[in-house]
Amino acid sequence: MIENLKVGILGGGQLGGMLIRHAIDLGLSISVMDKDPNAPCARYTSSFVCADPKSYEDVLEFGKGLDVITIEMEAVNIDALRELEKQGKKVFPTPDTIKVIQDKFTQKQFLLSHNIPVVPGDAIEDRNELYKYENKLPGCLKKRRNGYDGYGVMVLKSGADIATAFDEPCVLEELVDIKHEIAVIVARNEHGAVTCYDPVMMVFSEEKFVLESQVAPAQLAEGMQEEATRLAEKIADALQLVGILAVEMFVTKDNRILVNELAPRPHNSGHHTIEASTTSQYEQLLRAILGLPLGDTSLHLPSLMLNLLETAALAANRVEKLKALLDIPGAHLHWYGKKGSRIGRKVGHVTITGSTMEAIAVKAETIREILN
Amino acid sequence: MIENLKVGILGGGQLGGMLIRHAIDLGLSISVMDKDPNAPCARYTSSFVCADPKSYEDVLEFGKGLDVITIEMEAVNIDALRELEKQGKKVFPTPDTIKVIQDKFTQKQFLLSHNIPVVPGDAIEDRNELYKYENKLPGCLKKRRNGYDGYGVMVLKSGADIATAFDEPCVLEELVDIKHEIAVIVARNEHGAVTCYDPVMMVFSEEKFVLESQVAPAQLAEGMQEEATRLAEKIADALQLVGILAVEMFVTKDNRILVNELAPRPHNSGHHTIEASTTSQYEQLLRAILGLPLGDTSLHLPSLMLNLLETAALAANRVEKLKALLDIPGAHLHWYGKKGSRIGRKVGHVTITGSTMEAIAVKAETIREILN
Repeated sequence: MIENLKVGILGGGQLGGMLIRHAIDLGLSISVMDKDPNAPCARYTSSFVCADPKSYEDVLEFGKGLDVITIEMEAVNIDALRELEKQGKKVFPTPDTIKVIQDKFTQKQFLLSHNIPVVPGDAIEDRNELYKYENKLPGCLKKRRNGYDGYGVMVLKSGADIATAFDEPCVLEELVDIKHEIAVIVARNEHGAVTCYDPVMMVFSEEKFVLESQVAPAQLAEGMQEEATRLAEKIADALQLVGILAVEMFVTKDNRILVNELAPRPHNSGHHTIEASTTSQYEQLLRAILGLPLGDTSLHLPSLMLNLLETAALAANRVEKLKALLDIPGAHLHWYGKKGSRIGRKVGHVTITGSTMEAIAVKAETIREILN
Repeated sequence: MIENLKVGILGGGQLGGMLIRHAIDLGLSISVMDKDPNAPCARYTSSFVCADPKSYEDVLEFGKGLDVITIEMEAVNIDALRELEKQGKKVFPTPDTIKVIQDKFTQKQFLLSHNIPVVPGDAIEDRNELYKYENKLPGCLKKRRNGYDGYGVMVLKSGADIATAFDEPCVLEELVDIKHEIAVIVARNEHGAVTCYDPVMMVFSEEKFVLESQVAPAQLAEGMQEEATRLAEKIADALQLVGILAVEMFVTKDNRILVNELAPRPHNSGHHTIEASTTSQYEQLLRAILGLPLGDTSLHLPSLMLNLLETAALAANRVEKLKALLDIPGAHLHWYGKKGSRIGRKVGHVTITGSTMEAIAVKAETIREILN
């Protein structure tokens, strides 16, 4: 039975922790690999391996005793995963899917080749090459690889910013006139069954490109929800996805949808599914990669998710502030238990549920005041 | 912060597993002790100790490095817990609370001394003594200690049944004219804050005394809900409870409420709180024992919980049957991943949520058909 399956996760952060939370519901055995011995997941499995998901040897060794391997981060060794696939292991998402998405320019080319509208962008080799594109500024510069949580993204306003720009392979994207940012999580299994969560609205902090809050359901102009889910499904099929995929999109001021970025794993934009949806994104991922029927994605409660970023105020009065937060009815705390403290780091999130979005907004305001 | 607290659970069954599920939300470090190396919890912690919760030495050793100790079963060594308390550890529920409840006759005397209505019963030393009570039959015979999941309970219809009755300290209870069985889960913290979940209706299988299903909310005659929660709160105060307590009660045909049994830990009757309540019983337990504010206990969806007991049919077609079950929208599977197979054993549960109890009842029927 499923409890005899050995499932491995590459990456041991909070996404992996929440995946274990839902693996408990299926009685699964979970192994985790992360290069940080203090990764949040390490405490929640009897099978933690401290090694590097980017290392060929480490990933191959990790996969040896496993039946199914998945990821909670994209920066993993593709060649090792391909070798494990050859050995008969299930690797979901497939190495091909991860490889396309790992590199932001390859990702964009893939989407274009499938007639998916994307933010226009050029591949840039290094800082020096940026000067050739000075006439295209202002623009958004993203590292092709290994960006996460706002790291690896910067806005170049003019040529004057080039001197301090990233000096490595990047994508230089047009600055789009954005009305709002939305995300759709889509799941697909080996049998080709596809199911989407409804789009959510995402609000990013201006300077840091970190998700500040997320609202579900998103209030969109007529037809936009259908268009967003249609695009997400089309991408899942094009990728021959097995697993889940977060599709981040821009809605432009003239009501076009452009795909911004993909993530073939549990995603910040789907945290609310734990409390607000019939099936969480974590359970959905497990269902997809284990060949189980995909779950019902209905939203049964409106919700607002707030990321908790480390601040001096939070570090100084942690217990008091978290207690105040836990005292708010319908505020669901997820505290990641990360060791050490670094300002700006994502240390948790809160999903607020309630009967109306107005009531939820009031609670969100209270929480913001508590955290300040 | 709370992630630096070391919390220990005595007992590593499915209740402990679900407790870890919710400990992840607080980033807690959890240690577990169970004498079975294959206990469901063993996979979900880096700190599993295979030892006997009934052993003084084992419990004392387990508690050494911990800050807070709780239980997911009553059969634990009280003297060791008292010693750990003396050493400054937080032990919740307290050894006193566990001791009162561990023994079904002591429990009954305690309740009577606080003017709580209970099912009348007599203490019986052994099988031989039962003959003195022949005139009180029919009755319900319960072992004073270590009963669980229907083990340790039998009905004696007449004197003829005494020959095969339990031959150890028991309570012989009157057979009450029951309209329905209900349960209330109450939580209390160190500051004396008390909060109750609404009563649920419990349906037991006739022969085996195992909970077949549970319905929330319970449909009760006017005033009965208030009376049931009032009794639960009164018991929590009388016990000076810190933690959570399941209070199982009988509603008699003449609308009296009699307390049947107590359990000072997460309980079968509260499984539905994971999906149907704002705060789950597991999170509530953690909040109570960590001195955090108690959570909102509102039921936001009606629900029906079905226990999954091992059957020959389920053992023979496990994957197929569980897949069919996972294909039902709103059926939330909790599969305990127990090793080995024994007919009649609790191997999981399903909580069905939906917009109306009628829709839920239809799904429950489908699930019963799948499982047969």
